[in-house]
Parts: sequence; structure tokens; C-alpha cells
Amino acid sequence: MDNFVFQNPVKVIFGKGQIAALASEIPASERVLLLYGMGSIKKNGVYDQVRTALGSRSVVEYPGVEPNPEYATLMGAVELCRRENISFILAVGGGSVVDGAKFIAAAVPFDGDALTILQGKADGIKTALPIGAVLTLPATGSEMNSFSVVSIKAINEKLAFGHPSVFPRFSILDPQVTMSLPPRQMSNGIVDAFVHTTEQYLTYPVNAAIQDRFAESTLKTLIEVGPKVLQDPTNYDHRANMMWAATVALCGIIGVGVPQDWATHMIGHELTALYGIDHAQTLALVLPKLLRVMKEEKQQKLAQFGRNVWGLSGPSDSHIAKDAIQATEDFFNAVGVSTHFHTYSSNRDLLLQIPDRLAKKGMLPLGEKRNIDAAAIGRILEQF
Amino acid sequence: MDNFVFQNPVKVIFGKGQIAALASEIPASERVLLLYGMGSIKKNGVYDQVRTALGSRSVVEYPGVEPNPEYATLMGAVELCRRENISFILAVGGGSVVDGAKFIAAAVPFDGDALTILQGKADGIKTALPIGAVLTLPATGSEMNSFSVVSIKAINEKLAFGHPSVFPRFSILDPQVTMSLPPRQMSNGIVDAFVHTTEQYLTYPVNAAIQDRFAESTLKTLIEVGPKVLQDPTNYDHRANMMWAATVALCGIIGVGVPQDWATHMIGHELTALYGIDHAQTLALVLPKLLRVMKEEKQQKLAQFGRNVWGLSGPSDSHIAKDAIQATEDFFNAVGVSTHFHTYSSNRDLLLQIPDRLAKKGMLPLGEKRNIDAAAIGRILEQF
Repeated sequence: MDNFVFQNPVKVIFGKGQIAALASEIPASERVLLLYGMGSIKKNGVYDQVRTALGSRSVVEYPGVEPNPEYATLMGAVELCRRENISFILAVGGGSVVDGAKFIAAAVPFDGDALTILQGKADGIKTALPIGAVLTLPATGSEMNSFSVVSIKAINEKLAFGHPSVFPRFSILDPQVTMSLPPRQMSNGIVDAFVHTTEQYLTYPVNAAIQDRFAESTLKTLIEVGPKVLQDPTNYDHRANMMWAATVALCGIIGVGVPQDWATHMIGHELTALYGIDHAQTLALVLPKLLRVMKEEKQQKLAQFGRNVWGLSGPSDSHIAKDAIQATEDFFNAVGVSTHFHTYSSNRDLLLQIPDRLAKKGMLPLGEKRNIDAAAIGRILEQF
Repeated sequence: MDNFVFQNPVKVIFGKGQIAALASEIPASERVLLLYGMGSIKKNGVYDQVRTALGSRSVVEYPGVEPNPEYATLMGAVELCRRENISFILAVGGGSVVDGAKFIAAAVPFDGDALTILQGKADGIKTALPIGAVLTLPATGSEMNSFSVVSIKAINEKLAFGHPSVFPRFSILDPQVTMSLPPRQMSNGIVDAFVHTTEQYLTYPVNAAIQDRFAESTLKTLIEVGPKVLQDPTNYDHRANMMWAATVALCGIIGVGVPQDWATHMIGHELTALYGIDHAQTLALVLPKLLRVMKEEKQQKLAQFGRNVWGLSGPSDSHIAKDAIQATEDFFNAVGVSTHFHTYSSNRDLLLQIPDRLAKKGMLPLGEKRNIDAAAIGRILEQF
């Protein structure tokens, strides 16, 4: 096991009817920015629950945060926060809204060009506004971590930052509010949580027994519950297990003291920037192909994954690894997220830009062993 | 899954050489109480590492915290802290020292009789001194939770309290420092962590997939690594897996949203108070007997435990449950913690006091369904 530091101070308030807890979690004196997305919370009752719980607090609304939250949109909120002396940001929505809240929270008191926060200079962050979240979509894990991904249309980039000051103070997770989600969003959430876990697990063994078993626990739960949440959207227990699985997948507990990959995410971000493909769809596209290219290097963990998660056996680790990759690809398709590029686009030309784009940001080589170079990415993209 | 609130802000600093991190974790201006136990840290090099890392900080030492930390001893430290204007408590030792530090931290600023903290009035706690820990014994999980157990010889009691203000600010876990532990302490640690997990798992099913699998992960890891740490005390990976398993067993992540039992602990505390038997030894004594008495009520989870943790199969849940209890009892004996009362004492008379002692504290009935009454405790003790 590798050395590690782990700290996650987020207060998770989980279960039926918990949105009412806002009334006690946000001090009455705060000036609240209510940040949300494209308006679904006004249809499913979440908005009304939130406003009721906020009572007579001073609230300024900022709707319109997009999937893959856009820098320009978020900078609008930054200006609003400064103008209105906002002291607390309440994110109500999915991972995009929570990610957006983190960027806004860091940018409001930031001294200098806020764009630099996304350009690897997050260490310039001194403080951030406090954040609370009401999660409506189980997927990204942003509700219980300190990471954020922001898209910048002007330069066609999707960039990430992380800082301890943007851990939400609290996150409210009521599985009931996910029952009205469109199937596509649930499908995406299943794949997103699955790939968050594999990024921290499908690397090489370092004899980290708890971490491996916790990762396998999360993957098995997603495999078990994923099809059920799609088939039976109003079953509370399935929704609750899905929601908690997606949160633990990226709260840090699975990834302590183990190597981490994240190449699938980095390549996926480029696909979203170039094609506008949903984040989880990009992960479903990339992961099986990446695992095939990196099969030798990852073989021990792939075979362990095959045995412990998929219940596979076979004449050799190589056979089991191969079958485990296929089982993963089949699973993504079965829960409604295609692993075939032609589902999303017929224009293969932009794919060729990806290695260069990553190289220009200084991100190559990728992977837990820093051995996914431009050539390896080329072999992944060839399979598209 | 039941509703829950989860928050654990402890910063865990894990791995080789991490004691040096004290230099950056404790502000240089703090007046530090260095709390430790019976002196083993002076033999295994931990004391020297700690003093080196503390550098020129103002440090007052308070050694002598016993296993099952004693109220009178801790009150001596409370007086010392007040007299010396201590602003930070550094606990260096096992769970007893960390538990002791929590009580001291809460008692120093406490307004009124500190004994009431242990008598179910922890809600009177307004604040506590900050605590840091350097853990030397993987067992209790106290390094990553807000609970503490204190013994009071004068009234022959062992009482617990918990309060969010006594979460350690940080805990340093270097598995290397556990290599010199006496086998008895490691054996006790294995059983302690195991029973912490079963208290949160062997109840009744509420369809909490992640929690069940995380509990099973922890139990399987302890079963796998327990014998290895005893056979090969200088193997770093075994020690690391044991240490992290013991921490996660009681950091809260396993127990969210599920029923919890804790009857084995409550009965065990009485055995320690009456006979001076080691905490983990009392758990090994009680758990298998309690599971036999409660086998019908716990049958579904016992059968799940048998299948998923012990790999058992059989003609019925009842058979698997029975075999799982036996496997657990055999495991405790195999790692060197006897489940036989005659190993510890030949005086059975005091056992008869236990139901009454628990009743007088208003603790009966015990268990996740509040159905372990005096009669059930009698049936458990009959097997001693």
C-alpha cells in the first residue's frame, strides 16, 4: 500500500425528506445564491421543497447552469455574487451544478484572473465561499469531493481543478428526487460511477486489501442495481443504493494508497469538448478500448476484476482479463450507454486532434504508469 | 436503507515515516499536552520520532494512561491542562490513549462536573481542545471517530461518550510502529476490529448494498490478514492492511443507514469492569454466544455473512447461520483470543450481576431490535 493522506469533511444528509434539513444547515443570516440548472427542479418539486426550507432567508437565484458547466455562465454568477454580497452558495442539481458552484465559490474571492484556477493554478486559491448541495442526479460524486470540471467554449476546452476549500459543507441526497430523471441521465450516472471506480482500481496491485474490496463492492453494487433502477424507477431502495454507490465511488475512500489512472477521463473530456458527447458516454466509449490497449500492463488487476466482480474463471489471467473487458463493454450497452462511436457521430476527423490537444496541455503521457502516450491514444482511437 | 447523516472530518495521514508530519500539522504556537500510555513508545522509537517532529514547541508530558483509561488518571491530565494553559492534546498510543485524549479535551473547557460527560450528558459539551493522534495499535478505530470509553474504578463502571467536537484533527498511522507490538495486543486488535464490524452488520437486512459489502470487505480482510500479521510481524503490507481495516471498521462508513447492535460491547464492558478482562477478549467471549441466542432474529444476516464472508453453503439459512457462528468462534481462537471463560477466570459468580448492572444504567433491552433483555443476557451468560 502506498502512503496517503485522506480527509473528507462533507456532511452527507441522506434519505427521504431530507431537503427540509436546509432550514438548519444554512445559518439564517446568510445571503444565499441558489444555483441550479435548466429548470427540471421546478417540475419535480425540488425547487419548492428548497424554497420552503430556505424560508425567509435572503436568496438570489441563478438558474441556467448547463451540463458540462460553461465558464462564461459561471462567471456571470461570480459577478452576481460580488454585486449581491452573497455569503453562501446552494447548488441544487446534478454534478454540473455542484461543479459550477465550486468554481464560483473559489472565483468570487479570487485575486486575479479566475481562468487561472482552471489552468493548474488552483494553489492560488486562498479561500472560497461556503457551499451546500442538494443533489438531484447520482453520478459524478461531486457532492462529496473537492473536484470540479468546467467547460470553456471560447477555447473549446474542458478543464478540472480541485481544492480543499471547495468541499461542500453539506450535501443532501434524497433518492426520491431521482425517480423522475430521464432514463438517459440515470444510464449516464451508472456508467459515470462505474468508471470513477475503475480509474482507481484497474491499475496494478499494491496489496491494498480494503481499497480493492471497497472498489469491487461498489462495482458489484452498480452492476446489480443499475439495470434495476432503469426497470423500476420508483423503487426507493434501488435508487438509494444507486445514489450512495455513486457518492462513495468518488469520495476518496476507494482511492487512498493505490495508483490511479484517469486516462479514460482525460480522453473523454476531449471527446466532450470536440463533439459535445455526454461525459458518461465518452467514458463508455473510451474505457473498453483503453483496457484492450493496456491489457498487458493492467492484466493482474483485470483478472482480479474478472474473478471478483464478474465472477469469471478461465484458463489464464489473460483469458479472464479479456472476458472482463467484454463484460464491462456489454454492461455499458445493457444499461443504455452505447460504446460505439457511430451512435454519437459520423465525423471521425476530429479524433485525430486528441493526442495533440492533450500534449499541448502538458498532460501526456497519461495513466497510472505514465505510459499512455500519443501512440497508445492513437491505438485507442483507432478502435472508434 | 434507513435515513442517515454522515460526517467524519478526521485527516488520516497514513504510511511509512508519517510521524514527521506532526511538524506541519500542529501549529508552532500551540502548547501541547503529550499524552501517552505505559511507556512502550520509549522502547520502540515512537517517542523519539514524536519529540523530533515537535521540535521547539512547548510540550508538557502526561504519561501513564492505562488500558481502559481510568477517570482519575485522566482528571489529573485535565487539571494539568488547565494549570499549564494547554491548547492542543497529542495522543500517542493505542485506542485507550486516544479515548483518554477525547475525554480530557472535552473536560478541560467543560462547565460543571466532568463525570456527567460520561453519564449520558455529553450534550452539555460546548467545545473541546483540538486533538491529534499518533496511533501505535490498530484496534479501536478511535483515531477516526468521535467516541471514547472511560473506566471509573471508584464506582466500578466503564462508560462511553461521543461528541463531534472530539474528532481528532488528524491521526497519523504508520504501520511500521506496530511491528514491535506484543502478539496479545495484535490478537486483541484483530478481534476488536472484527466485532466493531459485526455490530454494524449482523442485524437485519435493510437493502443497504454498499454498507453490507463494505462490512463484508472489512471482515474478509481481517480474516485474511489477521493470521498473517501474527505469523509475519515485520511484513509491512500485512500491517498496513490490518491497520487500515481497523480504522475503517469504526470510522462510520460501514454503519450509515443500517441498524446497529452493540449489545456485545455493552455486555463486554461489564466483563471488563467486573473482571478486568481485556476489551477484545470480552468481545470474543460474548459475540458467539450472543449470536447463538439471537440466531433466529439475526438469521438472514447470519446466512449472508456465512455465504459472503466465510464462503459457506448448506441446505438452509439456519444451517449456514450456525456454521458461520462456529467459524467466527474458531477464528477468534485461531488468532489467539480465547472464547472460553475459564481461560480468564474461574469465578462465575460476578456474571450474575451483569443484567442488573445494565438495567440500573437504563440500558436494557439491548440490540438492534431492543429485544436483548435480562433473560436473553442470562442465556448468553449461561454459556460461559
